Amino acid sequence: MKIAIDAMGGDFAPENIVKGVNLAKKELSDVTFQLYGDATKIREFLDNEVNVEIIATSEVIDFHDDPVTAIKAKKDSSLVRAVTAVKKGEADAVLSAGSTGALLTAGLLLVKRIKQVSRPALMSTLPTVDGRGFDMLDLGANTENTAQHLVDFAVLGSYYAENVRGIEKPRVALISNGSEESKGSPTVKEAHELLVAMPEINFIGNIEARDILTGGADVVVADGFTGNAILKAVEGTASVLMKQIKTAIMEGSLTTKIGGALIKKSLSGLKDLMSTDAAGGAAFVGLKAPVVKAHGNSSEFAIASALKQIHKMIESDVSGKLVKHFEALDK
Amino acid sequence: MKIAIDAMGGDFAPENIVKGVNLAKKELSDVTFQLYGDATKIREFLDNEVNVEIIATSEVIDFHDDPVTAIKAKKDSSLVRAVTAVKKGEADAVLSAGSTGALLTAGLLLVKRIKQVSRPALMSTLPTVDGRGFDMLDLGANTENTAQHLVDFAVLGSYYAENVRGIEKPRVALISNGSEESKGSPTVKEAHELLVAMPEINFIGNIEARDILTGGADVVVADGFTGNAILKAVEGTASVLMKQIKTAIMEGSLTTKIGGALIKKSLSGLKDLMSTDAAGGAAFVGLKAPVVKAHGNSSEFAIASALKQIHKMIESDVSGKLVKHFEALDK
Repeated sequence: MKIAIDAMGGDFAPENIVKGVNLAKKELSDVTFQLYGDATKIREFLDNEVNVEIIATSEVIDFHDDPVTAIKAKKDSSLVRAVTAVKKGEADAVLSAGSTGALLTAGLLLVKRIKQVSRPALMSTLPTVDGRGFDMLDLGANTENTAQHLVDFAVLGSYYAENVRGIEKPRVALISNGSEESKGSPTVKEAHELLVAMPEINFIGNIEARDILTGGADVVVADGFTGNAILKAVEGTASVLMKQIKTAIMEGSLTTKIGGALIKKSLSGLKDLMSTDAAGGAAFVGLKAPVVKAHGNSSEFAIASALKQIHKMIESDVSGKLVKHFEALDK
Repeated sequence: MKIAIDAMGGDFAPENIVKGVNLAKKELSDVTFQLYGDATKIREFLDNEVNVEIIATSEVIDFHDDPVTAIKAKKDSSLVRAVTAVKKGEADAVLSAGSTGALLTAGLLLVKRIKQVSRPALMSTLPTVDGRGFDMLDLGANTENTAQHLVDFAVLGSYYAENVRGIEKPRVALISNGSEESKGSPTVKEAHELLVAMPEINFIGNIEARDILTGGADVVVADGFTGNAILKAVEGTASVLMKQIKTAIMEGSLTTKIGGALIKKSLSGLKDLMSTDAAGGAAFVGLKAPVVKAHGNSSEFAIASALKQIHKMIESDVSGKLVKHFEALDK
């Protein structure tokens, strides 16, 4: 299988991207890694060229570019060229740590959505206390969603959790302002009713945002605006608390400082829980092939995780199965 | 001034409610505390009856009651009687730690909304790292909001922050999926445009949920569905992380345990940041008089904080000022 990689996207490109490929290559011997970007810079960080194709490109889309304009104007950018490879069937999937907007736009325009999927969505696997994790979508590909969109998200998330994460009958829940069936916006209530009637989805009802990190569900569905807000609230709270712990220890008494030094190792375990290194990237689901966005500030380990995740997506043919599922619907 | 108090509402009523009154009485000598509930049980916990009126009631609304039904059926409940006191002008404000739904319903039906306010909202003062705090609304009184609702929330929050918290020209921000003006749902974009055109509001634009705890704004406005989800995501994340820290220390090596014991005091400071004890209650704003909901599991300190908060609300006449503001609008 072949994975097209935008080597120039992200805050630490191409270094972390290429080093991530070096790491992933050791485990994924059946993959050809196509690196799109500045060939000289790529070779600077590449261990060797076994199972690697370097495709020289002359342009880079950055975070300031307007996505739609950039996709059309920068045809020889590493991002557009990598996504185009999937469109042409020269690659099975694409990874970029560059502009989210540009990747979503290029994915939609070039890879194209599965015809019967109303709206593709951005999905990530987030950590839970029990280590099982959960998939949450939409994290912000949309700013407004209908009940039918939410139902499609439930199907996309459920297929992903089952095929890529190997979870049998994934428990799917809908974000609401209360766990009772009667709670929710009119849109959520309508989606709730539709999901209850779908035997192919293991729908467990509503979930409150306070229960997602403790493993209340395997797939958590929200409209893009709310899902984005929840993700950022979780990130912001975790970041503030970790800083507060550090400050409390650093500015504390000598006793506190000694205590802090003694528990340092345990706290780094905590940091791992909130780290994005192991989580892989955010998948843009609902398209005909895997399109994955890694964090802009991804480490080489995060890039390697994302590549392993894409490997599972291709291997399980989750996109092909979704195409079949939606084709079979009489919409 | 007189504050009507539902002495029977909440998980630890009437004990924590009455003990909270004992505490608040020491600081608020100009308040008459009207305690509605079981007179015998109330007297069991009351230090003395100086500045206290006990009004015996025979019924209690609990969390399982349907709000609308309960308000109508249990006319002699401590909650309905306390809210009715405000309606009749026998009290200036009301506090309850009982059912949120019942209090919101009773507030709407009896105290009534300010005529030109499209929708009342639930608002809390949440902690920030710098200790300044911010007011966030709507936290879930509504499940769906229009742009005009959001604009009204901005006015309500701004008046509150200025009058009750003493913040000059409070910085008001709108929750969105990006800080740029171009980001947001159609509703948020419309509200953004309206707010920019209002010189009486110090509107600083959009804010992402990840920046609220670091003091990015004094007033944070969201629709009730999103605001509720953000609040619960913050609570859930804080709770999970605090538990993880404890577990990491308890299950760690002897060294870690000793370290944990040494930093215990600093960590309790962290717990304070996330504690609701000092934060007061959630105000149901947009009504003609202050209606405040304390957490169901409020400690006596949380009840005392809520009473002090209500004292400031009455003293500053924030509700009266809001009535005037909205009357002056040519809606």
